[in-house]
Amino acid sequence: MTEADERILADFDRKLPRGLARAISRAESGAGAELMHAVFGRTGRAMTVGLTGPPGVGKSTLCSELVGVARRDGKTVGVISVDPSSPFSHGAILGDRIRLTEHFTDPDVFIRSMASRGHLGGLAGATGDAVAFMDAFGMDVVIVETVGVGQSEIEIAELADTTLVALQPGSGDSVQLLKAGILEVADIFVVNKADHPMALQLQREIHSMMEMLDFSGWVPELVATRARDGIGIDELWAAIGRHAEYLRVSGELEAKRKTAFAHRVRALVIGDLERRVDARIADRIGRTNGSAEDPYGAAREILADVETALPESQTRPATRRTTRASVKGL
Amino acid sequence: MTEADERILADFDRKLPRGLARAISRAESGAGAELMHAVFGRTGRAMTVGLTGPPGVGKSTLCSELVGVARRDGKTVGVISVDPSSPFSHGAILGDRIRLTEHFTDPDVFIRSMASRGHLGGLAGATGDAVAFMDAFGMDVVIVETVGVGQSEIEIAELADTTLVALQPGSGDSVQLLKAGILEVADIFVVNKADHPMALQLQREIHSMMEMLDFSGWVPELVATRARDGIGIDELWAAIGRHAEYLRVSGELEAKRKTAFAHRVRALVIGDLERRVDARIADRIGRTNGSAEDPYGAAREILADVETALPESQTRPATRRTTRASVKGL
Repeated sequence: MTEADERILADFDRKLPRGLARAISRAESGAGAELMHAVFGRTGRAMTVGLTGPPGVGKSTLCSELVGVARRDGKTVGVISVDPSSPFSHGAILGDRIRLTEHFTDPDVFIRSMASRGHLGGLAGATGDAVAFMDAFGMDVVIVETVGVGQSEIEIAELADTTLVALQPGSGDSVQLLKAGILEVADIFVVNKADHPMALQLQREIHSMMEMLDFSGWVPELVATRARDGIGIDELWAAIGRHAEYLRVSGELEAKRKTAFAHRVRALVIGDLERRVDARIADRIGRTNGSAEDPYGAAREILADVETALPESQTRPATRRTTRASVKGL
Repeated sequence: MTEADERILADFDRKLPRGLARAISRAESGAGAELMHAVFGRTGRAMTVGLTGPPGVGKSTLCSELVGVARRDGKTVGVISVDPSSPFSHGAILGDRIRLTEHFTDPDVFIRSMASRGHLGGLAGATGDAVAFMDAFGMDVVIVETVGVGQSEIEIAELADTTLVALQPGSGDSVQLLKAGILEVADIFVVNKADHPMALQLQREIHSMMEMLDFSGWVPELVATRARDGIGIDELWAAIGRHAEYLRVSGELEAKRKTAFAHRVRALVIGDLERRVDARIADRIGRTNGSAEDPYGAAREILADVETALPESQTRPATRRTTRASVKGL
């Protein structure tokens, strides 16, 4: 472990927020492995909440209100705000983050923005590390807020114990829910802007969609909020508490955390493999002129070397929630 | 090769569009490897154009107009419309696709929608296959239209020889361009809705951003259009022609196609590796209870087996355009 890491550890022991800030920066720059090894034993205490939803639904306001209600209960709170990977602006996403500033002066609230540029492996890894560092640092509640514009953002929310999906009345969002498998990832639906003329219809739509499915165990709750006016936040906080209690009592918490752990290992392994594969492909293309064969032939040849090291297995993947297309016929 | 594949090949030889449709379906279901091997030698003739941009910019109208101008020049045209991976609706994306229907009855235009659900590896693979099948079938021009809401969609546009980035006046898009590295992927900027009050400002912003950079070789062109009224389409088509000519004369076409080939091999290899890694992780988590160690430790152990099969290399990856976060410190 480097001297810098030792200083960060000392800051952790003295509960100095700068230690947490530096630890997350280490993770972001891909140099957090030693530090993680040192503090991972301290993780597992925090209640982690993922909050996702389309741009403009009011996620940052919801997040800010949740921080407020958690603080009222005497909890320390960490917030990780994941910027969308989209290169294009989606309205007021970043502007809305300003809502969180009311907590900037609270020493028991730690807020961190993380960009989601670059590849999924890198981000899921860094976000997972940030959650773990906040947990190890002693935050009681860790909220991961992501804009749900892509599969990767949803996967990030899945790192959490409890996933909130916020929806916008009158946006047609509900129509997309079934298609996209969102019903599966949501533990709690939040219909924000509950005073919108279409809010009741959205609630009805969510209820009818849920009736079409069989749930074993937890049945997603639906909470209507008007975050801007602080309405429905106590109810939302109570629903989060009920879900946390359910996870503990049912034993699902352990299973969920295994899945989250698997996700993080996966992100690290795939990130590294991608680097190796890129190098191997570069070697090949340089050598064969690239036109001698079809892509499947080239892929098959590269994979032949891996067959022994990573043999196929009959075990079903532990990453239960994410549908992932596999390359058949290779 | 299966009997079904033989029939598809026969349809290819007789220029029957149903052969092309079936070939793409084979690719989508992950069973296109044999067929690709059989027809890959016929590829390389088509001019491929990627068209990306934010929701609502008018991509489908642009696409439809480009099809029209290409047909006027006597070219056969294939269009691949990639649906966004977002689970949430983005306004009129799908509705706008209706614009393309005016070409549905033209036997020399082949239009195909592909969903981008599931993992990147799967989609990039299937989209790449669709481009290759259209090329092998004899389409002179192949347009890949994607909503640029994520890195993966931009990567798909990169499969093309010429990448068009369409931008929306008054949306703040240009601010995001530099950050997101879009300047690097665009061969031609299209400022659509050129009659918008902010259109000139957007053009000025793009010009000033370009002045801040050094270009070697092709300097991105900027074309203002009003696709809905057919204005600027001839100019856009001419710019695409100039870029195609530049690629041929400079020798960059060969380099670009090597990169595209590398991308496709990469998608196939990574897709397969992900499956193997998932199985390996499932084995591990089942065995060790998942809590005995930190994620980096677990990842390191899985990667140790791969080290021999896929050793690190000093060669730089051929995938020039995409910044990809690598997992350092492993």
